[in-house]
Amino acid sequence: MSGSDALAPLALAGRQFRSRLLLGTGGIPNLAVLERVLEASGAEVATVALRRVDPEARGSILDVLARHRVEVLPNTAGCYTAAEAVLTAQLAREALGTDWVKLEVVADDRTLLPDPLELLEAAEQLCALGFLVLPYTTDDPVLARHLEQVGCAAVMPLGAPIGSGLGIRNPHNIELIVEQARVPVVLDAGIGTASDAALALELGCDAVLVASAITRAEDPPAMAAAMRRAVEAGYLARGAGRIPPRTLARASSPRTGLARLA
Amino acid sequence: MSGSDALAPLALAGRQFRSRLLLGTGGIPNLAVLERVLEASGAEVATVALRRVDPEARGSILDVLARHRVEVLPNTAGCYTAAEAVLTAQLAREALGTDWVKLEVVADDRTLLPDPLELLEAAEQLCALGFLVLPYTTDDPVLARHLEQVGCAAVMPLGAPIGSGLGIRNPHNIELIVEQARVPVVLDAGIGTASDAALALELGCDAVLVASAITRAEDPPAMAAAMRRAVEAGYLARGAGRIPPRTLARASSPRTGLARLA
Amino acid sequence: MSGSDALAPLALAGRQFRSRLLLGTGGIPNLAVLERVLEASGAEVATVALRRVDPEARGSILDVLARHRVEVLPNTAGCYTAAEAVLTAQLAREALGTDWVKLEVVADDRTLLPDPLELLEAAEQLCALGFLVLPYTTDDPVLARHLEQVGCAAVMPLGAPIGSGLGIRNPHNIELIVEQARVPVVLDAGIGTASDAALALELGCDAVLVASAITRAEDPPAMAAAMRRAVEAGYLARGAGRIPPRTLARASSPRTGLARLA
Amino acid sequence: MSGSDALAPLALAGRQFRSRLLLGTGGIPNLAVLERVLEASGAEVATVALRRVDPEARGSILDVLARHRVEVLPNTAGCYTAAEAVLTAQLAREALGTDWVKLEVVADDRTLLPDPLELLEAAEQLCALGFLVLPYTTDDPVLARHLEQVGCAAVMPLGAPIGSGLGIRNPHNIELIVEQARVPVVLDAGIGTASDAALALELGCDAVLVASAITRAEDPPAMAAAMRRAVEAGYLARGAGRIPPRTLARASSPRTGLARLA
Repeated sequence: MSGSDALAPLALAGRQFRSRLLLGTGGIPNLAVLERVLEASGAEVATVALRRVDPEARGSILDVLARHRVEVLPNTAGCYTAAEAVLTAQLAREALGTDWVKLEVVADDRTLLPDPLELLEAAEQLCALGFLVLPYTTDDPVLARHLEQVGCAAVMPLGAPIGSGLGIRNPHNIELIVEQARVPVVLDAGIGTASDAALALELGCDAVLVASAITRAEDPPAMAAAMRRAVEAGYLARGAGRIPPRTLARASSPRTGLARLA
Repeated sequence: MSGSDALAPLALAGRQFRSRLLLGTGGIPNLAVLERVLEASGAEVATVALRRVDPEARGSILDVLARHRVEVLPNTAGCYTAAEAVLTAQLAREALGTDWVKLEVVADDRTLLPDPLELLEAAEQLCALGFLVLPYTTDDPVLARHLEQVGCAAVMPLGAPIGSGLGIRNPHNIELIVEQARVPVVLDAGIGTASDAALALELGCDAVLVASAITRAEDPPAMAAAMRRAVEAGYLARGAGRIPPRTLARASSPRTGLARLA
Repeated sequence: MSGSDALAPLALAGRQFRSRLLLGTGGIPNLAVLERVLEASGAEVATVALRRVDPEARGSILDVLARHRVEVLPNTAGCYTAAEAVLTAQLAREALGTDWVKLEVVADDRTLLPDPLELLEAAEQLCALGFLVLPYTTDDPVLARHLEQVGCAAVMPLGAPIGSGLGIRNPHNIELIVEQARVPVVLDAGIGTASDAALALELGCDAVLVASAITRAEDPPAMAAAMRRAVEAGYLARGAGRIPPRTLARASSPRTGLARLA
Repeated sequence: MSGSDALAPLALAGRQFRSRLLLGTGGIPNLAVLERVLEASGAEVATVALRRVDPEARGSILDVLARHRVEVLPNTAGCYTAAEAVLTAQLAREALGTDWVKLEVVADDRTLLPDPLELLEAAEQLCALGFLVLPYTTDDPVLARHLEQVGCAAVMPLGAPIGSGLGIRNPHNIELIVEQARVPVVLDAGIGTASDAALALELGCDAVLVASAITRAEDPPAMAAAMRRAVEAGYLARGAGRIPPRTLARASSPRTGLARLA
C-alpha cells in the first residue's frame, strides 16, 4: 500500500514495533477468534492478565501468541493495591521471563478507574526492581508526569473507563499529556470504534491499546482490521499536517478569473 | 492486507469502485503532487471544476487523471443558480463525454452552502435531461429525500462548510439521511482529518469525498494515504458491529474465580 | 433581582415583550398545571395548535391564557403542505383575531422536520396575505435567509427535532443564522434542559420557544422557573462579553511579587 | 420571582447559604467593580488569595466583603507543595479567624492543574489540624473519594484549567463524582459562560465557583447577574426532572383525532 513508508516504527520499552496497535486479549471468545484477530490486527504486542493464564497449559493463549510471534505484555488486572500489583508483576516476570509489565491498579470494580496513589507507589517500586513499567493511568497530565519521573517507560492514559466504548472524553487532557511527555504515550481504554483510535494518534499518542472494542465486537476480526487501518490513518494524518479548522468556507477552487468553456 | 476481503465494492451511479474515497482536486498545488496524491489515495474518481479545465490542453489535470485511470466527475462549482448549473453540466457532458455530474449550486461565497431551492430545481432538470446527478446538499434529511425523489443517483450531504475542516457537525442528521436513503450517501465537505472520514463511514455513509483536507494539508500525499486507510477503517468498523457505549466500566476479563499464581 | 435592568425588551412581530421565553403548550397535562407553568415561566406568548382548540369552549386553554394576559400565537402544527398551512393560518386569524402565525409545515411524522419547499411556499403566500409569519425552520442559514427575504417577521430554527431534548446539535449553523439575520431569531425545538436554553441566547438568538422540555418534565412549573432564569442568564451573558476560551490556564491572581504574610 | 421556593439552601462546611454561586475575586479590576459584582451575583462566599491580602489594610477587599456580609473563604493559590499550603492555611486562619480553607496545591504555572499527591497530603494534614477543607481537585472520581475519606468538607473538581473558559470538558467524570459523593460537590475552574454554570448544576453539583469568567468578562456585573440566574436555572432544572433525550421527534400535540375547525 502506498504511503506505508511514512509509517515509522514504534520504540517502546526498548523494543521496536511496526504496528502501533496493541491488543488486549480480555473478552476474546475463544482461541480460534484470537488467531483471526491477531492476523487482521497486525498487532505485535498483546496484553494478558496473568491471573487468567496458566503458563504451563498447552493450547493456551500464550501458545497462540507465540505461534504468531506476538510479544506478551503481562498486566496486573484485578489488583487494587500497590502490594498486590508488585507481587503480581514479580510472578509474571518469573513465569513468563519478561521484563515489562502493564501496570493496572484500580480503585473499584464499578469504574475500574486507576487509583492514582497506589498506582504511583507501585510504579516506583517496580521501576526500582528493574521492570519496564507501562502504567494504565487517568488522563491527568500531572499524574502522567509523576509516573514518568519515577521511571516509567511509557504512560497509558485512558480515553474513558475500561470497556465503556465512550471514546476519548477529554481530548484536551490527552494533548497536554502528549505535549509534555518524553516517553511514549499509549492511549488505553475507552476506544469504541475505529474513528476513536484514529483520533488518539491524531492527538499525538504514539500507539493505542484496544481490547473490548475488538474482542466484544460482533465480528472481532473485522473490527481488528478496522483498528489496524485506523491507527495507521491517525498516525499518517498527524504527520501530514492537517488543515486548521475555520468557521467559514474556503473555496477549494478559485472563484474568479476562470475561463469559461463555450 | 488481511481483512481486505470484507471491503465490498461501491456501486455509484451505475459504476463500481473498489475505493470509497473520492478525491476533490481543488486546491492541489501542482500536477506532480496530484500524481502522488492519486497513488496514495487509491481514489478511482476525482471531481474537477469544469471552469478550471480546458479539456484541449495537454499536460492538464485531465491527462493526469486519465493516465491513472481515475474517472472524472465534473462538478458545477461556482454556480449560483439552477440555470447556470444546468448549462455548466451540459457543457461538461459535451466536453468530457460523461453522463454524470456532481451538482453544486451554492448560495454565497462566504459560506458556500447549497441553496436548497436552486439545487433541487437543477437536480430535477438534470435528471430529466438524462444526467446521473450527485448533488452536494445540506445535512437536511428532508431535502435529501426530495433530491432522491426527483431521481438523483446519490446524495452528498455536507459535514460542515467547504474547506472548513470542522468535521461532521451534526452526526445525528447524517444518521437520519442514511436511515432513509435508498441511493448511496457520500459525505461531502467539512472533513478535516482522518478520524472525520472514518466517522462518516461509521455513521453509514457509503463513501466520502475529500478535497481541501488532502490538497491543502502540509503533506498532501501523506494525508491521502491517511484518508485511504480511514475510509477503509470506518467501513470495516461499521460492518463489524461496534460495542454499545456504556457509562460505566466493563472489565475485559472476569474478576472472580481466577486462580492466582503461586 | 439586580442586573435586571440589562434585560432589554424583545421586539417581535410588531410587539414588545419583557420575556424572551416563549411557551409551547403542547403536552401540558392539564389546565391547572398550565396556570402554574405560566406563572413560573413569566412567558408572555404561548403557541397553541389551532386544531386542538375550540375557541368557543369555556374553561379552555384560551381562557387560561387570556386570564394570564398571555398572547396567543397560533401554530399550524399537523400541516404537511403549503396549502394546508395557509388554510389553517387563515382559520386561525378568523377565529382568534390575530395577525401572526407560527408556521409549521413538516415533512413526516417520524422526524417532524420542516419541509423546506412547502415551508417557503407557505411563508411567501402568508406574507402576501398580510400575516406576520414566524416560520419553524431547519438550521440551514440559506433557507433562513430565503424566509427573511419573502418577508417573514422572524426565523425560528430548530436546535434538534421536536420533542427530542437533544439540545442544539449544530451551534455553528445557529451562529451563521444570527450573523446574517435582520429579523429576530427564535430558537425552536430541541431544548432539553436549562443550559440548552442559555446556550441559545449566548449564540445570539433573541428568544427561545420551549414546549416539551417544560410540559413533559417531571415537574413542569419547576422547569418553567428554570427556563425563565436560563433565558435571562444566556441573554445577559451574551451582552456581558465572555472571556475567550484558551487551551492553557490563566491564573486569576498574579503569581509573582506578592507580599507574604508573616 | 416565582419558583424561588424550590431553591433549597446550600449546606457547606457547617454553614448555610441561599446562593449556590461562590465568587473568586482574582482578576477583579478594582474594588468598585467588586461591589457591583457582589450585588449582581448574590454570592455569599468569596475566595481570596491570602498572599494578595494585607488584612490590616483599610479599604481593602476584605472591607468590601465584610460590608456586603460576604463570607471570606481564604485559598492557598500559589502553593506548589503540601508544606507551603499547610503553612499558608495556618496563616490565613490566624489572620482571618476562619476555620475553613479552599485548598489549592498546583503542579505548575502553565496548567495550574492540581498535584494529586501534594493535594491529598495537604488535605489530610489540614483536616487533622481541625480545618474545614475544600480542595480544588481534578475531575478524577477516585481522587475525589480519597479527599472525602481523609475528611474534606467538600470536593471541588475542575471543569477545565483555571482561567481557560473551556467549560466542563468531561461531564461524565463530574457525574461519577456526584454519584458517589457524600459531601457537597462544587464545580471549580473552567466555567466560561452562563450555560457552563447551568450545566454544572444539572450534572448534580451542589454549587459552582466562578472567578475569571466574571472578573475578566467585558462587563463583570452583567456576567455576575447572568451567572446568578444560570446557577439557579441549573439547580431548578436538575430538580425538575428533565425529559430524556430521544433520537427522533415526539410531537408535542397529538396528531390524530383532532377536530378540525370549520
